Amino acid sequence: MSAAALDALRALLGPRGVLTEPDEMASYETGARYDRGRALAVLRPADTAQVSGAVAICVRHGLHLIAQSGNTGLVAGSTPDDSGTQVVLSLDRVTGVFSADIDNRSLTVGAGHRLSEVNRRLAADGLFFPIDLGADPGIGGMIATNTGGARFLRYGDVRANVLGLTVVLADGAGTVLDLGGPLYKNNTGVDWKQLFIGTCGAFGIVTKAVLKLHRLPRDQAAAILVPASGEAVLSLLRAMEERLGPELSAFEGMSGNAIRAALDHVPSLGNPFGGAVPDYAILAEISRARPARGDEANAEDLLQEVLADIMETEPDLLADARFGALERTWSLRHALSEGVKNAGRLIAFDLAFRRGDIMRFCDRMKAEMPARFPGVTICDFGHIGDGGVHFNLVVAPDNALATDPARECALRDWVFDVTVREFGGSFSAEHGIGRKNQRWYDLYTPDTQRRLATALHRATASAPHLPPRLGAVSFE
Amino acid sequence: MSAAALDALRALLGPRGVLTEPDEMASYETGARYDRGRALAVLRPADTAQVSGAVAICVRHGLHLIAQSGNTGLVAGSTPDDSGTQVVLSLDRVTGVFSADIDNRSLTVGAGHRLSEVNRRLAADGLFFPIDLGADPGIGGMIATNTGGARFLRYGDVRANVLGLTVVLADGAGTVLDLGGPLYKNNTGVDWKQLFIGTCGAFGIVTKAVLKLHRLPRDQAAAILVPASGEAVLSLLRAMEERLGPELSAFEGMSGNAIRAALDHVPSLGNPFGGAVPDYAILAEISRARPARGDEANAEDLLQEVLADIMETEPDLLADARFGALERTWSLRHALSEGVKNAGRLIAFDLAFRRGDIMRFCDRMKAEMPARFPGVTICDFGHIGDGGVHFNLVVAPDNALATDPARECALRDWVFDVTVREFGGSFSAEHGIGRKNQRWYDLYTPDTQRRLATALHRATASAPHLPPRLGAVSFE
Repeated sequence: MSAAALDALRALLGPRGVLTEPDEMASYETGARYDRGRALAVLRPADTAQVSGAVAICVRHGLHLIAQSGNTGLVAGSTPDDSGTQVVLSLDRVTGVFSADIDNRSLTVGAGHRLSEVNRRLAADGLFFPIDLGADPGIGGMIATNTGGARFLRYGDVRANVLGLTVVLADGAGTVLDLGGPLYKNNTGVDWKQLFIGTCGAFGIVTKAVLKLHRLPRDQAAAILVPASGEAVLSLLRAMEERLGPELSAFEGMSGNAIRAALDHVPSLGNPFGGAVPDYAILAEISRARPARGDEANAEDLLQEVLADIMETEPDLLADARFGALERTWSLRHALSEGVKNAGRLIAFDLAFRRGDIMRFCDRMKAEMPARFPGVTICDFGHIGDGGVHFNLVVAPDNALATDPARECALRDWVFDVTVREFGGSFSAEHGIGRKNQRWYDLYTPDTQRRLATALHRATASAPHLPPRLGAVSFE
Repeated sequence: MSAAALDALRALLGPRGVLTEPDEMASYETGARYDRGRALAVLRPADTAQVSGAVAICVRHGLHLIAQSGNTGLVAGSTPDDSGTQVVLSLDRVTGVFSADIDNRSLTVGAGHRLSEVNRRLAADGLFFPIDLGADPGIGGMIATNTGGARFLRYGDVRANVLGLTVVLADGAGTVLDLGGPLYKNNTGVDWKQLFIGTCGAFGIVTKAVLKLHRLPRDQAAAILVPASGEAVLSLLRAMEERLGPELSAFEGMSGNAIRAALDHVPSLGNPFGGAVPDYAILAEISRARPARGDEANAEDLLQEVLADIMETEPDLLADARFGALERTWSLRHALSEGVKNAGRLIAFDLAFRRGDIMRFCDRMKAEMPARFPGVTICDFGHIGDGGVHFNLVVAPDNALATDPARECALRDWVFDVTVREFGGSFSAEHGIGRKNQRWYDLYTPDTQRRLATALHRATASAPHLPPRLGAVSFE
């Protein structure tokens, strides 16, 4: 970096705000999965004004910026590449704003706050931001990724729960846009905040958000269900939705292989099935607004009763149901990621389908995988309620898929092709687009959409002689 | 229109597809409120391919197109101006596609279907599209307007319930974009469908949509509540949300003036208060997934119990509660529009605020209106649960506000200014932008957003020598 750029950034951000020593930068250069890059520098502005100033300086000096908040993403969208020329702009100090509006059920919050902290601070008011993930992302990164999670069925994704955004554009002025605000209804033109949700910082950097909050449920229960067959899974979901409506807050699928990986590699975990693990299981959860009073049925009574009713009226759906304390029941679901990570070399996919296609896709893969790619154990799990599938594959460390990147790429090409071209599914359900899936963005995105992205990219940069250099991804 | 254009359109759309006679065009030229224009012709393509072909012909001949589906909008967004040079492209024949995916809880549907028909056909499967409005819009227009309605609190707006869109761009090729599809989770770049939701056809014409469906509730109850004071309204909402969570499906506010207008002008309506109408009342509704079984509490029991609990624990909130059959209870709320329309000359606003600001805004207006604009009766009603206010004003036919457009414009300028600049509210909560509020779009939209809209407009048109001429509104 030129001395002029460095001096300008140091003058703006102070000594804590500009890191250039390798040991200081290491944690910002390393992602949660796959990615390890090298940064030219790490900038740590403390508020929107500093982000704006820092972006303007970088644009003027032709520096390529990668925005990063919690750095928990899984597609290399928030880390620099290995060129050593990209500057990481971390939002971890943008935490000054935290203002809950209880009447409005909304929170105005700086992009650097972690999800866990947001929910810890809201709990006293009985409110929460309902995106439920394994990771603990920063708010800015959650928005840039449009995360989904395990309670999408009830609450939707981040997009459905963002009312307003403050965004800094990568133009020579570091233009600040206030988009939306704390309004639930606002139809006054293009809803520009949508451009910055799920696009991994390619069009601008989110520095502040107004989030829609929900009331914390005060009575919950969960059970592990064993469907009678793969075909029964969707009928079981329908039967539960019919009886529970919005009180059904999760319907998560877990393959036997994923469960076995968790039981083998997460020592604290108990086996809820006693003995043999079934081919497939479902975690179903009920969430109710208030505790039962007097002799009212509580959430667990209701779940038991609904399942008994289903067993009586549609006896071919459910083979078994295991009740347990809420946290213990979820502990199995939450251990799946760690389990498959430790079972061998992990090749992970984040796919989405029409809900009715999930089991059909998995059956297709089970049938064709052995011949095409021997030695693969399919450890899928995910979100039957919203069609998302963490299609995770485990191979031995000496399998060609683990040792030969071209072989892994061939596998990915095949899985994505079946997903997108045959099933009309998505090659990135909730992880967004980063360097790790740019190849498939390029492959599957029609020219017209890429042309629109180029036009917007140019317009948000607004300095035609300075090409926009923002984000890990090119949408053009 | 040139003979060449007319010939090309007739060859493409057939004799039923091109209307040029004044009596045939009249209903397409006249909007639901305010607007009466003159069309050069009315085109009635029957499917996406015909829309594409018709758009391409019109673009090549430099014709300005106004897309129209149900033509129930309230801001002159779907009717031609009075120049006689604009061509209406009606979607009323684009009804060929109607395909429900029960497992996925989604519906793929042509833009010309009416909301009422969609819900009539889905009822047998226990599903519905949950946007609840006074009007019966076409699906294309609902999407282009992003309508909200009375159950937003529970289900959100149209945007929250659209999975995918098929759109025709106004370029020389009439390019067809398939955006989204039947997936709940799909984070693969810019979510382009958002550009066409709520923008009244200015960037492209929606011809088909994939809608997210919900299960029809099977147990509902409603009551009319009289809050103890204006300040109690939000506390009452909070108290009900705490106890009911997602089962609270409506919380609609009605001013005494609006109620009196309905009672005076809708003869079929009974007075639920027996005698004197209160200053303010609320319609609260509970919706539950399934009917009560055995000695379980049903929705009405639950509503009674929740209100009794609130009266006991927070005695200052609720002055009275009137229970009645569901339809009869809603009939008052649904009669408000007709009531105020018949009470004099109506000057209607569709505003939104943070929920806690609604009553403060109305108080401010009540205090200042008499001195600024004498003779105005404020008949507000709307959606406390989502901050939307139908701020409807009634004046006598001989009031200057009714006879002098400049005076009406001054009133609008003042109301919008207090809404937007002082309260940070929205000048169009759910009616979108049409010719009738272009003035305030121009006034309140920052230059950067207008510049982005221009860039997108140019990019969607893709024929730089042919400026895009689509929609009743300019977002530039």
